[in-house]
Amino acid sequence: VHTFIDELHQELSVLIEKVGGVGRIKGIGVGAPNGNVYTGNIEYAPNLPWKGIIPLARMLQDKFKIPVRLTNDANAAAVGEMMYGAAQGMKDFIMITLGTGVGSGIVANGQLIYGHDGFAGELGHTTIIPDGRLHPGTGKKGSLESYASATGVAQSAIEILENTDRPSSLRAIPTGELNSKAVFEAATKGDEVAKEVFAFTGKVLGMALANFVMFSSPEAIILFGGLTKAGDLILKPTREHLEANVIEIFQNKVKILVSHLKESDAAILGASALMWEL
Amino acid sequence: VHTFIDELHQELSVLIEKVGGVGRIKGIGVGAPNGNVYTGNIEYAPNLPWKGIIPLARMLQDKFKIPVRLTNDANAAAVGEMMYGAAQGMKDFIMITLGTGVGSGIVANGQLIYGHDGFAGELGHTTIIPDGRLHPGTGKKGSLESYASATGVAQSAIEILENTDRPSSLRAIPTGELNSKAVFEAATKGDEVAKEVFAFTGKVLGMALANFVMFSSPEAIILFGGLTKAGDLILKPTREHLEANVIEIFQNKVKILVSHLKESDAAILGASALMWEL
Repeated sequence: VHTFIDELHQELSVLIEKVGGVGRIKGIGVGAPNGNVYTGNIEYAPNLPWKGIIPLARMLQDKFKIPVRLTNDANAAAVGEMMYGAAQGMKDFIMITLGTGVGSGIVANGQLIYGHDGFAGELGHTTIIPDGRLHPGTGKKGSLESYASATGVAQSAIEILENTDRPSSLRAIPTGELNSKAVFEAATKGDEVAKEVFAFTGKVLGMALANFVMFSSPEAIILFGGLTKAGDLILKPTREHLEANVIEIFQNKVKILVSHLKESDAAILGASALMWEL
Repeated sequence: VHTFIDELHQELSVLIEKVGGVGRIKGIGVGAPNGNVYTGNIEYAPNLPWKGIIPLARMLQDKFKIPVRLTNDANAAAVGEMMYGAAQGMKDFIMITLGTGVGSGIVANGQLIYGHDGFAGELGHTTIIPDGRLHPGTGKKGSLESYASATGVAQSAIEILENTDRPSSLRAIPTGELNSKAVFEAATKGDEVAKEVFAFTGKVLGMALANFVMFSSPEAIILFGGLTKAGDLILKPTREHLEANVIEIFQNKVKILVSHLKESDAAILGASALMWEL
């Protein structure tokens, strides 16, 4: 962690000098996996190499000598979407990031939901298929993240290839190199196994979104991250299974939108907005 | 519905006169299944005999000539718990009513979560076991309500009795008369099948609560309603399966509390509090 902070300090110092020095910076807003807005710590992030509790905000503050505010990266992205993106003007929406992992930020009554301890919005770890696929980072089975992440998509492809004899161009790729990008490319070329992987991923995601809708009844769900590049390959089954799993009062109401902010811009804009709140 | 309102008017008029007439009443707060705070309607309540959209607030207002505010019965109960009950001083908690059905009210940042359309908090209808038990009211499969309600408990008992040869005192009861109270009484007398029914119900409820915790990270979950009378028969497995299904950052943090308000008092107190907001 210290190496990371030293390198970050070096890189950022150049930028800070360019804009007129540290006196012109109100503070640093950080969006990080398992970042806790109340404590300023990154706590037990299953997808980071840093284990346990990392007091990142304090460490950055000591180094940069300006205030630092930290939150979950998906929470930061949600704020970014609300201020500059697809969720402008909305008071109730859920942001889901479909990347290496699955993150989420929940806005209700126009406010981010932090929960009593700052850890609300870990929707990627909710169980969608009891006794389903093992998540190696958490030890839990059947979580949304174990299916609807880049890793999950690759795993779904590997499972079909290993458990069936179905022909697929993906068989030419060594298992260790099979990733979501390869599955996407095969699917766009009409590979049936690859298409089924996205249909299945969308099914699990849609089932999960249905539960989230019945929790906070959002106006929209904003999807963000690498998997959204698959477009209707994943969005169509997601919409179908969302609608199939919500009760009548929620049907045909919730928009599923894809973020149009540039990759990672939402989180950066949202993190910077954290400082304005101070 | 009109008959109901006429009868209600007759009954309440006596009480209203007793306290000094309608001039001394600021308004009527109503907590009702699928009640919508924004529209004042009861909309598509699966567990009520009234189908479709019932403009109950307007109908009551026309009849009583005073303002009427309506919300979901579980939302009303959550407000009641926050003001007078187990959730006093809490800003983040979830209220779950385990009765004929399963209702819920969610408070985050000290506010009820209504969602964009007023229907947030239908946690009883979230899918916990995909392709699980059919809910006859909604047509959905595997919802929390189809297991963790009084009806669900009776159904779980019937399934074990029909699918196994295990001895049980419950076999003396005709299937049509088997209810959650009978299962509870058998369990307290040591009936193994009845005890297993509560263990299973607690397992499904715990799995569901784990997902809810990872959504809004509440300080406590307040349980309310008939099934809580089963005490540790249901609470112990609920706690166990909640802890087993949340990721590390949520473990051993969330209190599971049983409401100590008298049956239905929470909802009535909470509904009355709706008027103070006006």
